[in-house]
Amino acid sequence: MEGEASAEVRERITASFERQGLMRHLGARLAHIAPGRVHIVLASRPEVTQQHGYVHAGATSAIADSAGGYAALTLFPADADVPMVEYKINLLAPAVGDHIEAIGTVLRSGRTLTVCRLEVFGVHDGQRSLVATGQQTLFCLR
Amino acid sequence: MEGEASAEVRERITASFERQGLMRHLGARLAHIAPGRVHIVLASRPEVTQQHGYVHAGATSAIADSAGGYAALTLFPADADVPMVEYKINLLAPAVGDHIEAIGTVLRSGRTLTVCRLEVFGVHDGQRSLVATGQQTLFCLR
Amino acid sequence: MEGEASAEVRERITASFERQGLMRHLGARLAHIAPGRVHIVLASRPEVTQQHGYVHAGATSAIADSAGGYAALTLFPADADVPMVEYKINLLAPAVGDHIEAIGTVLRSGRTLTVCRLEVFGVHDGQRSLVATGQQTLFCLR
Amino acid sequence: MEGEASAEVRERITASFERQGLMRHLGARLAHIAPGRVHIVLASRPEVTQQHGYVHAGATSAIADSAGGYAALTLFPADADVPMVEYKINLLAPAVGDHIEAIGTVLRSGRTLTVCRLEVFGVHDGQRSLVATGQQTLFCLR
Repeated sequence: MEGEASAEVRERITASFERQGLMRHLGARLAHIAPGRVHIVLASRPEVTQQHGYVHAGATSAIADSAGGYAALTLFPADADVPMVEYKINLLAPAVGDHIEAIGTVLRSGRTLTVCRLEVFGVHDGQRSLVATGQQTLFCLR
Repeated sequence: MEGEASAEVRERITASFERQGLMRHLGARLAHIAPGRVHIVLASRPEVTQQHGYVHAGATSAIADSAGGYAALTLFPADADVPMVEYKINLLAPAVGDHIEAIGTVLRSGRTLTVCRLEVFGVHDGQRSLVATGQQTLFCLR
Repeated sequence: MEGEASAEVRERITASFERQGLMRHLGARLAHIAPGRVHIVLASRPEVTQQHGYVHAGATSAIADSAGGYAALTLFPADADVPMVEYKINLLAPAVGDHIEAIGTVLRSGRTLTVCRLEVFGVHDGQRSLVATGQQTLFCLR
Repeated sequence: MEGEASAEVRERITASFERQGLMRHLGARLAHIAPGRVHIVLASRPEVTQQHGYVHAGATSAIADSAGGYAALTLFPADADVPMVEYKINLLAPAVGDHIEAIGTVLRSGRTLTVCRLEVFGVHDGQRSLVATGQQTLFCLR
């Protein structure tokens, strides 16, 4: 699972990501697309905060969910869709920093079901700390 | 758990909600505040969609998470904060409709930990259908 | 979802339950089989305890998991199998009492995926209190 | 988190494990105790199976839950107890093999809350494969 995904996969995922109104509205961007692993970055703007000024768990979860979904999609044929079935996420620490970065990693890619690990890091002055960790189930629809 | 919460509780929760940059940015609004139960409504705008035009699971989760957090807060003293520890959510159906409505309901309010049920309905022409269901753990910080 | 399931369904589920070595070894028994809802009861014997003498969360989860699986199976054709995909469970209180009772209830039965609510009650001198609550995803295999 | 835990920690955890009636009844044993990581092994006996002869998800979960709980306990003072708050587990493959091995690893040990990763492997003729993966929240009680 090292290195970048193929150009075809990167184009397919980028095109799908750009159709996600929510990701654009939040200001999220795709930062890395590898086979079975996708990174999404979100700047800590006032538009994504909760009541104390930290990144809202809902925004943290949203990019984690998308990162997992696209990680699953990197391993599937071009015509497949991979709707999310469920996920669980623990908030470990307030999501502070200049930006947060979600990493979705495929743990198991089955014929029908895929399971991903979700991790979100807060990044401040280049220092990274884990702020959330989760697990997600996706369904492969052809 | 019937009826509205007291004016003090409603004011406290409304003030906190209005400080959540994410809720404002998504266009979410508080629809009901009862003791142990809070409803949040989100209109199905292009700004909250995934790649097929349905409401993004991240937006669905975000209002569910906030609804549970504020439901927990209705049962705590004015100076308490109730950070979310974790939640799990199943997406049951595409979140379609004119708007979606998340309902957070306290299942158990302990001294330190609170557990909420999360439900999200898609509402179309007045017809409601369950699109997501989850469970959330919160921590009471005084 | 009221009343008992048909004789065919009850026989099918009872036969499957009796093949579960774990349920027999724990001393669990099927207490009720309704369409979309199954109850399993477990006596509080020393063989199912954790270090403080309460029912072990693993035993609580095991009967909750089986109750959900069989609840899903009541709604499927005779030749289907419904392997569990995942579940999440919150322990709300120590599982004390003469016995515990797990109730699995189908929240949504789809063509491929079924989602159940899991509840476990501690029962002492006829008094019931909720000791665990969860949510489970199952996969329909034909 | 390398190496074995101190003798004091190993004794404390072994003594607690031996008081768990369920672990003894299932035939589970502590296989490794490191700081922040505990392994528990369970032989694939008929007493722990589901209806198809594989290890029951309830038994798989039970040893995973205990492994996480004891992993958390390795990092706490002798007088602390660490009751489980909740966990979520995905079954990735049928739990086949001569035995299964659960590994609980502390991801974050906070003052009040600890989060563990749970992994269960099926072991057959020395070959290991991941059969379940999960995440657990525990509460530190002093």
